[in-house]
Amino acid sequence: MIDELIKQIKEKNAPIVVGLDPTLAFVPEALLNRAVEEKGETLEAAAEAIWQFNKAIVDAVYDLIPAVKPQIAMYEQFGVPGIAAFARTAEYCREKGLVVIGDVKRGDIGSTSAAYAVGHLGAVTVGKARLRGFAEDFITVNPYFGIDGVKPFVDVCREEGKGIFILVKTSNPSSGEFQDRLVDGRPLYEIVAEKVNEWGADCAGEYGYSAVGAVVGATWPEQGRVLRRLMPKTFILVPGYGAQGGKASDLADYFNSDGLGAIVNSSRGIIAAYRQEKYAAYGPEHFAEASRRAVEDMIADINSVR
Amino acid sequence: MIDELIKQIKEKNAPIVVGLDPTLAFVPEALLNRAVEEKGETLEAAAEAIWQFNKAIVDAVYDLIPAVKPQIAMYEQFGVPGIAAFARTAEYCREKGLVVIGDVKRGDIGSTSAAYAVGHLGAVTVGKARLRGFAEDFITVNPYFGIDGVKPFVDVCREEGKGIFILVKTSNPSSGEFQDRLVDGRPLYEIVAEKVNEWGADCAGEYGYSAVGAVVGATWPEQGRVLRRLMPKTFILVPGYGAQGGKASDLADYFNSDGLGAIVNSSRGIIAAYRQEKYAAYGPEHFAEASRRAVEDMIADINSVR
Repeated sequence: MIDELIKQIKEKNAPIVVGLDPTLAFVPEALLNRAVEEKGETLEAAAEAIWQFNKAIVDAVYDLIPAVKPQIAMYEQFGVPGIAAFARTAEYCREKGLVVIGDVKRGDIGSTSAAYAVGHLGAVTVGKARLRGFAEDFITVNPYFGIDGVKPFVDVCREEGKGIFILVKTSNPSSGEFQDRLVDGRPLYEIVAEKVNEWGADCAGEYGYSAVGAVVGATWPEQGRVLRRLMPKTFILVPGYGAQGGKASDLADYFNSDGLGAIVNSSRGIIAAYRQEKYAAYGPEHFAEASRRAVEDMIADINSVR
Repeated sequence: MIDELIKQIKEKNAPIVVGLDPTLAFVPEALLNRAVEEKGETLEAAAEAIWQFNKAIVDAVYDLIPAVKPQIAMYEQFGVPGIAAFARTAEYCREKGLVVIGDVKRGDIGSTSAAYAVGHLGAVTVGKARLRGFAEDFITVNPYFGIDGVKPFVDVCREEGKGIFILVKTSNPSSGEFQDRLVDGRPLYEIVAEKVNEWGADCAGEYGYSAVGAVVGATWPEQGRVLRRLMPKTFILVPGYGAQGGKASDLADYFNSDGLGAIVNSSRGIIAAYRQEKYAAYGPEHFAEASRRAVEDMIADINSVR
């Protein structure tokens, strides 16, 4: 799947991913009201509104981008109907030919990680049937448990031709609280990065990149530069561009000299583009067109530095 | 909610929690077959089977125990129907008066953790309605993001009277890979433990324990002893007893001198008791009675050391 991701990045000349992280505050009022009229003030209405919102955006941008990254928390907050909207969004995006990166940040002891792995990337067995709970191509994984908690994901990736991105240095302001602590004189995130290399060593695809990738926030360009060199064969998923403060000029060093090796995410900056002054002329009724324009602008911005 | 948990531990004289982590391999064949006959070889059948399995066990043991800990991965692997079984299990256990500890190990950047927090412990707003996605009393939280990723959970705990358990030293064999790395001469888990103290400092309940608890595996008794002293006001959720190898004799030091301060989890050891030689006489048809007997034995075992 890492090969499919890279192929699409090359074909579309767009090393970006759109974060489908809808909140009700981003959904235009008319769309939300329609769902509430139909289903009342319910979780089902919220789920319907975010699904309709996602679908309009995906329809407007899918030809420009290689991948989407739905953040499951934004769906999970609406309970079972929310999770159903997550599953439906992931399936729809796959039908549109997009690579789906489930931003789930799961990780647990081995037997539990195995359940997450088959649920999100593989299949469960019921009687003679092999069934897929969710249908992502990649998911994000939390490394805090060490190899026991990561290996089940790597195993399923290998069996199913899927991939993962392991949290190395996250984009949030307090990421340094534990991740930057010095271990033998080096920050913990470098220790994690070396493990990512090791865990993904025999999962390389045709472009030389491993199916085991890493997450490194756009908000830490100095660390990004070091981590790029430390993990030369690791594809880096880069959150934190745009709304969180990361700029394209900070991201040049996240790419390798082949122009590959990183995929930059924007969520709010794309899906809520119509609420920005820059795209306000579209108005809430043309929110999806505003998102398309924001995608075009982001692609140009990122391509200017790689 | 920490007060409710402690009250029930005292009333039932049982510092234990039953891990509702059903796999299809644990579900007696007759029960699974009934679900498959009704719903085919589907995710819905799997979800129905684990719900029926859970319900029978809860009915058989709820009067003996203060709390249950459903591990969401075991439900999530069955997709949307699985998540519905998780929600239904949590609701049913609350109706039975049990404290529900959702073992979800969520954690992300601030805005994302906030979505998880309202989804699992709080409420979302749709129009004028406040709606609950899931209805747990506690959840487990991964600390890798630092305070930004934890504070939204603590805030919701305070508003809603709920609680969390933060991963400090996990029970799995490779937990030391990152958690034991020395930072300024001390293992990382101690640094996390100090943060747990700090983050939970103003959330103390009437027994003096904070609503912000910690997870420390039963498999690490030496570390458990140190962490008990380092976090005197922190309630410790202890996985790893039984099937993972933790013994009661290892757990004496997880309790404070008040006989409180820890709650020990067993999952497989209780819910799949009928598959153990010791309880084999019950047979698969009386699996829930075997679980009840295993709960009684576990309570006696743990109480012998505190």
